[in-house]
Amino acid sequence: MTKTIDLNSDLGEAYGPWAMGDDAAMLDIVNSANIACGGHASDPDTMLASLRLCVEKGVSIGAHPGYADPLGFGRRVIPMTPAQITAMTAAQIGTLGGIAALAGARVSYVKPHGALNNFACVNRPAADAIAAAIRAQPGNLALLAVSGTELESAGRAAGIPTFSEIFADRGYTPEGLLVPRGTPGAMIHDPAEAAARILQFLDTGLMPTVGGDPVPLAARSICVHGDSTTAVAMARDLRAHLTAAGISLTAFA
Amino acid sequence: MTKTIDLNSDLGEAYGPWAMGDDAAMLDIVNSANIACGGHASDPDTMLASLRLCVEKGVSIGAHPGYADPLGFGRRVIPMTPAQITAMTAAQIGTLGGIAALAGARVSYVKPHGALNNFACVNRPAADAIAAAIRAQPGNLALLAVSGTELESAGRAAGIPTFSEIFADRGYTPEGLLVPRGTPGAMIHDPAEAAARILQFLDTGLMPTVGGDPVPLAARSICVHGDSTTAVAMARDLRAHLTAAGISLTAFA
Amino acid sequence: MTKTIDLNSDLGEAYGPWAMGDDAAMLDIVNSANIACGGHASDPDTMLASLRLCVEKGVSIGAHPGYADPLGFGRRVIPMTPAQITAMTAAQIGTLGGIAALAGARVSYVKPHGALNNFACVNRPAADAIAAAIRAQPGNLALLAVSGTELESAGRAAGIPTFSEIFADRGYTPEGLLVPRGTPGAMIHDPAEAAARILQFLDTGLMPTVGGDPVPLAARSICVHGDSTTAVAMARDLRAHLTAAGISLTAFA
Amino acid sequence: MTKTIDLNSDLGEAYGPWAMGDDAAMLDIVNSANIACGGHASDPDTMLASLRLCVEKGVSIGAHPGYADPLGFGRRVIPMTPAQITAMTAAQIGTLGGIAALAGARVSYVKPHGALNNFACVNRPAADAIAAAIRAQPGNLALLAVSGTELESAGRAAGIPTFSEIFADRGYTPEGLLVPRGTPGAMIHDPAEAAARILQFLDTGLMPTVGGDPVPLAARSICVHGDSTTAVAMARDLRAHLTAAGISLTAFA
Repeated sequence: MTKTIDLNSDLGEAYGPWAMGDDAAMLDIVNSANIACGGHASDPDTMLASLRLCVEKGVSIGAHPGYADPLGFGRRVIPMTPAQITAMTAAQIGTLGGIAALAGARVSYVKPHGALNNFACVNRPAADAIAAAIRAQPGNLALLAVSGTELESAGRAAGIPTFSEIFADRGYTPEGLLVPRGTPGAMIHDPAEAAARILQFLDTGLMPTVGGDPVPLAARSICVHGDSTTAVAMARDLRAHLTAAGISLTAFA
Repeated sequence: MTKTIDLNSDLGEAYGPWAMGDDAAMLDIVNSANIACGGHASDPDTMLASLRLCVEKGVSIGAHPGYADPLGFGRRVIPMTPAQITAMTAAQIGTLGGIAALAGARVSYVKPHGALNNFACVNRPAADAIAAAIRAQPGNLALLAVSGTELESAGRAAGIPTFSEIFADRGYTPEGLLVPRGTPGAMIHDPAEAAARILQFLDTGLMPTVGGDPVPLAARSICVHGDSTTAVAMARDLRAHLTAAGISLTAFA
Repeated sequence: MTKTIDLNSDLGEAYGPWAMGDDAAMLDIVNSANIACGGHASDPDTMLASLRLCVEKGVSIGAHPGYADPLGFGRRVIPMTPAQITAMTAAQIGTLGGIAALAGARVSYVKPHGALNNFACVNRPAADAIAAAIRAQPGNLALLAVSGTELESAGRAAGIPTFSEIFADRGYTPEGLLVPRGTPGAMIHDPAEAAARILQFLDTGLMPTVGGDPVPLAARSICVHGDSTTAVAMARDLRAHLTAAGISLTAFA
Repeated sequence: MTKTIDLNSDLGEAYGPWAMGDDAAMLDIVNSANIACGGHASDPDTMLASLRLCVEKGVSIGAHPGYADPLGFGRRVIPMTPAQITAMTAAQIGTLGGIAALAGARVSYVKPHGALNNFACVNRPAADAIAAAIRAQPGNLALLAVSGTELESAGRAAGIPTFSEIFADRGYTPEGLLVPRGTPGAMIHDPAEAAARILQFLDTGLMPTVGGDPVPLAARSICVHGDSTTAVAMARDLRAHLTAAGISLTAFA
């Protein structure tokens, strides 16, 4: 039986005249694109260009809502009630949907961005708030959540099709959590090593850890980054390694 | 046969902590509410509150997109290409739709706001750009356009259900255009006079003009304002006069 | 010897087309106006109008910087480094100063707004960051800080002329802190009671507390609110009571 | 006698996480930096970093106010009254001044950005509005204006120290105006040709034109661009040619 995985990445994060990342390159690598929705980044013209490129390249489209804080790029937790998080998330999914209708594109899933994602990974009310926004939308939208988090649980509890993601360039603890940045083993810089780890995981369901036994993780997608030339090269190498090993790369949603 | 007309008004134009108008009062008067979409005014929390109030009061809901210029309240023409107008309009309709899904509400029509509306009344490419954004959306959205304008023509040409509106508090020229503000006869301040004019129009299809014969106008809705205590009172009086005269007030969409 | 105190209030908090509070009324009551600087509220036109009104009424002018978060009205703590707080505060003081030059007005002091103020009251690095921004500006700007806080200490440590404020409408604990909102005794609603408390404080240097002995506080200003009709009336009554008791109301800076 | 000229460029146009241009490279080339003030681009952290770099490199600092329209990068004319232009310009000059105080930097002049500059070149009320904002500020700020424009005249009429700039990479008409983009001869792409034209101008006071005799221009500064790798290289080449020809490159203000 062919093993299958998906590569997803954050894209469409330009803002007016300001570019970010190399979307065209990444869209040749990934199966699923998390498209900024005008909260932490993007604007209507940028969204339309991003969505048209996704359609052209056959890449699956996810809404990527974040705190409405462009200067902080959605990386700062803005204090909000769960009801406010639900409204903000619904608004941003709707915004992307309005543009998708123009582009003849379909939004298939939602993955929160940056600080909103991190907060929802550990805070159940925030996670439930995001799940509520997704469930209310038409189109049976899926949720892409970091494996083993409150957000993943909230998605499942809300009855949303929920898919889990892991990171190829991050180390894991024996508990299945990410090794915090700045700690030895937190970052995997070598594409070959990253690919080997992912292949081991796809073979065994177990991810190597720092200072412990391999840990079982669930995952249907691998999050890769495209925010630098190095990151794009790493994503491309990872894809090549996975393909060479006979893994089928297909969109999860 | 009972004559039928609709009253519409701009609502939901608060912005974060800043209130505007008396939405609750107006929602007891009008049949259709043009709800700001986060462009010239409003934010996700405000949109949600506005939409819930519309559902509660049984008022028909329109998206009210405007230039993304809160400090100018959408009353300044921002230079944009038609393609940019289409993307902006689609984004804002989508935003309101995302929140409407939360509120269990349905967006039925679109009426552009302020400078965007005024510009599209006289500029066909802008009018076509708005019509293109509306036509691309799901849900068979209608367009509410000022009677006799390029926007109305563009809506019809695009095959969108297009409804025309007139103003109860404004004078008309023999050509069927609004008498410019600041000119004698531009504003009708007396509710009884405004109602009498509308009743004459509903009876004959002809609107009185300044300095000429009554002019034939098409209209399925009357635009009323709620931006001051006086305006709310005038709208209430107009409604009372129309109802007393046996006119049926029902939403057009 | 005549006893002297100052009344200060937050003013100039409109935003584009959206009004807030009754600035004209408050400027007849207070000696010092904390003017929003375009961070949590206001815009260049609003600042200019506010400053001209202060000049006309002879009211002392303070810059009132806040988190650059209009939708949250500066009432949410936005995660920032101390260096970022310094830059943001300096930028906002400068903005008001640029407009003050147009209005022939002089900015005399700084009082932080909302969440920035509250955070700096208890977080010394944030307090030092604000003090650093103030000290770097020309014009020997003073700091107006809540009595007994880290911000007051930081201002003194930085060698800035630092003045303390108390609240007429809030209860105090025996430790000299504000009784938290929602707790019995937190709010003083009766102007006569508020005035009596302030008069006792001006006579004795001791403020009544909830559940303990009166506590010594330092203060050169009383913060009053103007965000509702009730608040304006309370401020006016307080002023009348103080004047009737022979207290001299003069600006601190 | 040594001939003297200045090179100026727009810098500091990043926005939060989004970079723009290569400021460090340009600061080794130019004598004067027009620093964005948070209107069309920049934010407090970016301004502080830009100003510190200017101080470190000994580059003269100008405020570069623009329409408060980051998504349009200040390249769209936003309809404003002259009084609003004055207030906006004063606010932005003040903002940069507040940060300059932190950086130990001095703002010496003002050059408007993009659409604000273009509009003020041909619209005298807008030009006067900008001049009024500059004249009201402390510090005897100079104005840098395109040679032969209404803005230059307005600056002189207002009694502001006014300096004129020309473009090395643009063709001129026999009337001394820029050949419109898209017209043959509008752009000079060859650095050697650009340098030769500037040298001829510095020798004779006459600039070559398209289809006519050389035209007399006044100029104390040359505007160069840094918005692409090519532009930076062109600016560097121009500087090298001018220096090799014995021209002294010094800041005008």
